[in-house]
Amino acid sequence: MIENVKFNEQGLIPAIAQDYRDGTILMMAWMNSESIQKTLDTGEAHYWSRSRSHLWHKGTTDGHIQKVKEFFYDCDGDTILLKIEQIGDITCHSGARSCVFNAVEILPTKS
Amino acid sequence: MIENVKFNEQGLIPAIAQDYRDGTILMMAWMNSESIQKTLDTGEAHYWSRSRSHLWHKGTTDGHIQKVKEFFYDCDGDTILLKIEQIGDITCHSGARSCVFNAVEILPTKS
Repeated sequence: MIENVKFNEQGLIPAIAQDYRDGTILMMAWMNSESIQKTLDTGEAHYWSRSRSHLWHKGTTDGHIQKVKEFFYDCDGDTILLKIEQIGDITCHSGARSCVFNAVEILPTKS
Repeated sequence: MIENVKFNEQGLIPAIAQDYRDGTILMMAWMNSESIQKTLDTGEAHYWSRSRSHLWHKGTTDGHIQKVKEFFYDCDGDTILLKIEQIGDITCHSGARSCVFNAVEILPTKS
């Protein structure tokens, strides 16, 4: 499978984590080939931490492990989607359920 | 709002398009500051086409416009989420509803 995905010039591919129950988008992070392999081998989400430059097994420090229910990649192989069970129901370092919470107003009348 | 998001070294930020009705992830593409502004101004999704290096008003050639219902960015400002109404109910150039359709088997017993 790893041969079918396209890594960027840093060897990374974006991965979206989505709640498998209700479809809420919980976070977006980056994976390299090692984190993909670890995720598939263990069934728990592993990413590449760009800020700390190391393999990141999410939840090892705070218990907020992500159990991977389904693993997909997109039509052109440059995005990964993980459908996950978020242990603890908290994904964000802020303590929020999801990292995606800043709303921006769209200027035209809603259509 | 554009001051609150972080662009990468190419001036781009990933944007996830999600069906506003049922939460299906339809595609992931990239935006620059101009495409963000156009999206907010018009209420229709604009991206930056990396392959063609131009502003991409999705749907102008095939009618598959994306009406933006809600616009979000994440906790650290490096991902955008668009909740959209996909006109025609086809997002992918392949004719599929969503670009995300390649499933990969997870090796351990599903947990």
